[in-house]
Amino acid sequence: MIILRKDYNIEELCERFKKKDNIALARLITLIENNPDLAEEIFKHLNNITNESYIIGITGSPGVGKSSLIKELTKRIVKENKTVGIISIDPTSPFSGGAFLGDRVRMINISCHPNVFMRSLASRGYKGGISRAVFDISLLYEAYGLDIIIIETVGVGQSEFDIYNLAYTTIVMLAPNMGDAIQMQKAGIIEIGDIYDVNKKDLGGEDLIVQIEMMLDDATTTQSGWRPPALMTNSINGEGVDALLKKIWDHKEYLELSELIKERKSRRYIYKIKESMIDKIESIILQKLFTNNELNEMASNLLENKFDIYKNLKEMFNKVHFELKKDK
Amino acid sequence: MIILRKDYNIEELCERFKKKDNIALARLITLIENNPDLAEEIFKHLNNITNESYIIGITGSPGVGKSSLIKELTKRIVKENKTVGIISIDPTSPFSGGAFLGDRVRMINISCHPNVFMRSLASRGYKGGISRAVFDISLLYEAYGLDIIIIETVGVGQSEFDIYNLAYTTIVMLAPNMGDAIQMQKAGIIEIGDIYDVNKKDLGGEDLIVQIEMMLDDATTTQSGWRPPALMTNSINGEGVDALLKKIWDHKEYLELSELIKERKSRRYIYKIKESMIDKIESIILQKLFTNNELNEMASNLLENKFDIYKNLKEMFNKVHFELKKDK
Repeated sequence: MIILRKDYNIEELCERFKKKDNIALARLITLIENNPDLAEEIFKHLNNITNESYIIGITGSPGVGKSSLIKELTKRIVKENKTVGIISIDPTSPFSGGAFLGDRVRMINISCHPNVFMRSLASRGYKGGISRAVFDISLLYEAYGLDIIIIETVGVGQSEFDIYNLAYTTIVMLAPNMGDAIQMQKAGIIEIGDIYDVNKKDLGGEDLIVQIEMMLDDATTTQSGWRPPALMTNSINGEGVDALLKKIWDHKEYLELSELIKERKSRRYIYKIKESMIDKIESIILQKLFTNNELNEMASNLLENKFDIYKNLKEMFNKVHFELKKDK
Repeated sequence: MIILRKDYNIEELCERFKKKDNIALARLITLIENNPDLAEEIFKHLNNITNESYIIGITGSPGVGKSSLIKELTKRIVKENKTVGIISIDPTSPFSGGAFLGDRVRMINISCHPNVFMRSLASRGYKGGISRAVFDISLLYEAYGLDIIIIETVGVGQSEFDIYNLAYTTIVMLAPNMGDAIQMQKAGIIEIGDIYDVNKKDLGGEDLIVQIEMMLDDATTTQSGWRPPALMTNSINGEGVDALLKKIWDHKEYLELSELIKERKSRRYIYKIKESMIDKIESIILQKLFTNNELNEMASNLLENKFDIYKNLKEMFNKVHFELKKDK
């Protein structure tokens, strides 16, 4: 149950946040999560901070083992004296409160480490807003001074594209016998991974590796100079995780040496610009362009000849003209 | 693996579709799924069909038992001599090819029934397009003459709102010990259900029912005349499913008698108008408003003072003006 005190003082919270008060961090995240409009005011107080976090994204189907892999990665990153912030969006993840797989307990030890921060987003109810929340929380983590940010997201719908746009190194996780190969083929998932990890290697998965390699061979969009490696891990006993972490640092180094890191950071902000723009336009258009009565009328017109919908939509839209102007 | 023959003939497929050729139905779905732009042409050939399907939406966390409940419901609906079309969007669903819970086999018998049609959407890779695909497939099902359409969606992000807007009766499924109560509270899920079903009653769940009832008492948005019932089922042995189906028909009757069904149908089309509008605008704006160079420049400006992002975004957007005109 989430209790929001109404007597918060953002300025005071931000002062405490700058003094590395964990509770202030948690509180600010909750504020932003529940009221995105507060973000502007919150970040106003944090504008003189300089810190660069490195952002890792991990995506995969529910049950593929993302949480246990993150636990193993985090254990190792913390040993390198780095601080870690985790953002988890997966309704089946033990981080996110949907621990029907029964492994919630395995996670607790890592989330209690003083250098590890964890936030799970209720995956429900963020109408179009999950990626905004992820962006805001990762920015708060960055302002807090964390070295590494890990974003965990389930491979559903748009969230994989979000992670591709929001992280610098994206790890696509798969597991044997989950139909991943088929989905992968269909969805062009091969285009978003910087690293492919076939987890649950105790169940096999060599054939999946072969398929990934074949698809990478075919991919026209391979990044120049970086062939995404495909590794196997067992996130339960930690097998292969050292090698995976090594590949993450290799990719980080590759981005930094080739200056592609600038492009990744840019991509993150371009995505943000587009998302904010669309949000803004959406609300303007939907409020101003059509009144509720007009929308109702249009809907009944469509309903009358419901299988003509695309023809009729086209006609409706042909009546609408936009003009866009920019001040210089 | 999906093999798309390139030598399809839409007109011919539509003729076969009208003669109830299942393969033509399947082929048209695949065409629309892979190439949404074909929808207009396809529906052009179907515009003189009259059929009204009743659309049921079922949403819930992965693992809550949606697929087995749908199987039990479908068995009963088919016995009432009705035809059923199922659309499934859930990466963990046995329908959708992510059967890591091992119960795929249980589903096969129902999907082989001649009056049952099933389509699962790869939940990956539909950038913003899952709801369009669901709309199109349900419209194809409707044109095909099916009586009942069941849309299954995992409760992640926007998909719950999609189902609320696309279905006439929405069933929100929960299960004991899955953290659903917390998520529910946070996300206003209580506002979208016409019926609440606590599944896995063998594991308890009476407390969940109490919580749902309390939240319904508090809800300011209760539908006049329809208090959403909260039921318990065991979708594995079918316990409680008769009662649930009865409530679905009650809700259908309630909507039809009160003429609220018109409002639901309208809602579906208003949603469609808005979505199409936003799609269209998105592509115009993003292509025409800013060049890639401008976007890159804006992104580097944001990156320079990254914690000032919301202030800077506001300033950027203040420079953009829209004018909207409508022909009468």
